[in-house]
This record gives sequence, structure tokens and C-alpha cells, in this order.
Amino acid sequence: VFAYARPVRLEEVDAAGIVFFPRILAYCHDTVAELLASVVGGYPALVMERRIGLPTVHVEVDFTAPLRFGDTAEIELYLARIGHSSATFEMNLARARDSVAVARVRLICACTDLSTLRSTEWPSDVRQVLLAHLVMSA
Amino acid sequence: VFAYARPVRLEEVDAAGIVFFPRILAYCHDTVAELLASVVGGYPALVMERRIGLPTVHVEVDFTAPLRFGDTAEIELYLARIGHSSATFEMNLARARDSVAVARVRLICACTDLSTLRSTEWPSDVRQVLLAHLVMSA
Amino acid sequence: VFAYARPVRLEEVDAAGIVFFPRILAYCHDTVAELLASVVGGYPALVMERRIGLPTVHVEVDFTAPLRFGDTAEIELYLARIGHSSATFEMNLARARDSVAVARVRLICACTDLSTLRSTEWPSDVRQVLLAHLVMSA
Amino acid sequence: VFAYARPVRLEEVDAAGIVFFPRILAYCHDTVAELLASVVGGYPALVMERRIGLPTVHVEVDFTAPLRFGDTAEIELYLARIGHSSATFEMNLARARDSVAVARVRLICACTDLSTLRSTEWPSDVRQVLLAHLVMSA
Repeated sequence: VFAYARPVRLEEVDAAGIVFFPRILAYCHDTVAELLASVVGGYPALVMERRIGLPTVHVEVDFTAPLRFGDTAEIELYLARIGHSSATFEMNLARARDSVAVARVRLICACTDLSTLRSTEWPSDVRQVLLAHLVMSA
Repeated sequence: VFAYARPVRLEEVDAAGIVFFPRILAYCHDTVAELLASVVGGYPALVMERRIGLPTVHVEVDFTAPLRFGDTAEIELYLARIGHSSATFEMNLARARDSVAVARVRLICACTDLSTLRSTEWPSDVRQVLLAHLVMSA
Repeated sequence: VFAYARPVRLEEVDAAGIVFFPRILAYCHDTVAELLASVVGGYPALVMERRIGLPTVHVEVDFTAPLRFGDTAEIELYLARIGHSSATFEMNLARARDSVAVARVRLICACTDLSTLRSTEWPSDVRQVLLAHLVMSA
Repeated sequence: VFAYARPVRLEEVDAAGIVFFPRILAYCHDTVAELLASVVGGYPALVMERRIGLPTVHVEVDFTAPLRFGDTAEIELYLARIGHSSATFEMNLARARDSVAVARVRLICACTDLSTLRSTEWPSDVRQVLLAHLVMSA
């Protein structure tokens, strides 16, 4: 399991006083970016030099509690499945101050050649990093 | 069916050259906000004066094609189900220039008292506006 | 003078309950984008096809009143100066509900070849659109 | 001088391939938030519990080089002046990979009671933190 903590910033809260829900998905994207930091050059080199991206093709979220400014999201990510050119991540977000569950997220990404926007096989170094977080379901 | 068109803005595209996927969900939120424009005072008065919000409790998205700067998202929304204090919206997003399907979204919102952050019964005027877009499934 | 109105969106307000100040500059950028809508293909074609952008090289803002969710920013733009490859825009933002001045903005943009990121002469059609909003100072 | 480093995120780059300029001002706001981390409870407690905010009343920026995805902004902040209820910050942003100057920023904030949105005297603990970064100009 890969862990990442993300404090809520002033501008991520909306006029209802809680984190605007699409931003929770940006937190999830940040978590995947952090996970890929151990690939040589990190996520930026993957996108900018190797022109490989991980567009999301499917997402499912259950939101169970709000985050406010001053909260920190504690995110646990694991890899549920990896295919030829896709990966299914599961993430649980909790609120640091009281450990209340904030959201449960299932995200399917496609390894994509950004020049053509077609899916492509995972490069072996990226697959290696992902596999380290594969969790077999019961 | 409620229709809304949303041109992509320069800053909504990411370093991979396509609209960052959480922003697609902000487009969906904009669509619900536009739908509620016919409530007296619109969505802002609902949130700021009546302190009623519609936090998302569940979302599912299939992304099928990317949007770039210069594209316009054409969004069709209908109400699939309305409960005591929840509503299930279905949305289809298409790319205006070629009518290609961009995303299919299912969004469940909870009518919420923003002072307590507890769910509350739909006010009758809001329910009326939502019901006008209820589509019976076959 | 070119006029543009921009309603505040739910997610543009921060945890202090007012529009986060960098977003006011995004409103200004939107105004320039709208101004360029009369160039053939609009701002998107300029950026995506002709690879001409207008990065900001200098900005000065005096903020005089806050915007909240439910407010609309009324923006008036005029061109104060146009050079070989630069333009100085002046913008006044007011709050629609009470006409209170929100911000006074001075923005200098450089016509830029996005392939090289070097400044380049204004294309004549763009210069034409800009010149229509040139206001001579007293 | 207070130093803060901020890597560019995928979604902060726009369709022109460079960081959208208003986001540079969000980086500056992040820097002030980090500076205030040493106040008890940090910036969040200041805003959420004590209802003290620091809205920007004036900003001036010279942008001298672009940031791309993969870049890190290195920000140096110092306090140029502190008054009864205002503070003038000067910030220099540089690009980590080559030390090129990205932007020079002057930001004036007003210590504000968020309940009334009126300016108010700096609390002594906040003033103390700010004073530690006061730099006398020659």
C-alpha cells in the first residue's frame, strides 16, 4: 500500500465551505503522480520526454464525509489489477484529525502514447513500480 | 432532457494537452447549477441564503474521448431517480465538432442543510425543477 | 470599451468566503479571450493552429472590494497602448449588484510564437481587433 | 528570507504549454501560507478559528520566464514593510533547473476580520512571525 498525505488548501474549499468534489479526484491524481516518482525522472519525464500519459478511462467514487480547510486527506492507494495497457487503482481517503473515511475511489487508467492518444503497453520500468503496489483480493 | 454547452478554456487543459479529467466533473457540476437557475434566485441563493447544497455522494464516469482547447462539451442531463433527499443525474458529454461521445456520467447528490451538513428533504420548488427532467427508464 | 460579465462560480470562492484573488486574473484572461473571439477561429485557433499566444509579462492590480458566490463581475476592458509585439490592457471590474469597484487591473501581454516562446509581431488581423478598443488617454 | 519550493503540477500548465499566469500568484499565496505555519495552528487556524484572513489589496508582477511541467519554482520571500494592519511582501521566483528568474512579485495584504471584512490590527503572534522576515532596504 502506498500512502500520501495532502493538506487542503484555502482555495480548494467552495462556497459551501467544503472541498469541491472534483478536487478530491485531483488529490487522487496527485497520489498516482507521487507513486510514479520512483520511475527515473518521475511523472514529469514520463509525460514530457517519453510522451507517455495515464488518462483516466473510468472512475467511481463514494463520498462519505467532507473535508474543510485545515483538514489533511490521508490517502492509501493500492493496485487492484494491471493489464497490458491499463491499471486499476483503489484508494481510500481519510480525514487525518479523526480518521473518518472521506471517500473510496476506484480509478482505471490507460497507458497512453500522448503523440497519438492511443493506448500502448506499459513500459517495463513503469509496470515494475506499479506491481510493487499490487494487492491480491481475497 | 436539459442541455448545456461548455467551451474548454485555455487553463483547463493539462500538460498532456487534454482537459484534466476532474475538470469534466466541474463541467457536470456547472450543468446542475444551470439546471437550478430556474429556482428563484438560482443556485447561488439556494446555497448562500437558504443554506441548501447538493454535495455529491457518488459518481461514476466512463471517459471515451478527450477534449482539447477549442472544443466545446455538449452536455445532456436527465434525472434518473429522485428520493426524499437525493437525486440521481445521468449525463452524456459529447464533443461539439464531431459529436464523438466524451464521457458518460452518473452523479448522485444529497440535498443537504449546509449549517449542519446533514441531508434534508428537497424543498418543493427545487423538487419541481428536478422533476421536469425526470426520464423514465424503459 | 469592451464589456464582459462573469458570474462567480461555487468553486471560485475560498475558505475565507470570497473569490480567491488569482481567479480575478483568470477572469481578466477570459475577457481578453472573449475580445479575441472576433479573430477568425477565435482565441483557440490562434493558440492551437497559428501557435500564437499572449503570455502576460506584467500585471498590476488594486483590489478594492470582494466578490462572493452569487456575485457577477462586470468587466470593462480597453487597450491603453499597442506596440510591435505587446499590448497594454486596462480593466475595471465592478460588482453587478451594487456597482461597487472590485479591482482595477493593468495587464501587459506579449504576442508570442508558442513554438519558440519568443515575442513576435502582432498578426494584422489580431492588431485590427485590438485597435478597435484603443482608448487615447487625456 | 523565507524559502519555499513548489513543483509544477500536470494541471497547472495550460494549452500554451506553460504555467497559467494566475497560478503563479497561487504559488505566492502558498508561500505566505507556509510562512504562517509557525503561528499556533498555522494559517488554517488563523482563518477558520480566529477568523483572520490576509486578502491581497495590491499586486504587481513582472514575468520574465515561463515554467513548464517538470519545473520547480523556487520562491524567496521577504517582508518589505509592515504597518498597523498591512504587510508588503516581495518575492522572487526562480526555475530550479537553471536558476533563471521567473517572476518578481510585490504583494500587499491587509490583515482582515473575516466576519466583517474590515481591516484589523495584526495579532501580536502573527506580527512576530512576519517581523522575522523583515528586510531593510538600502
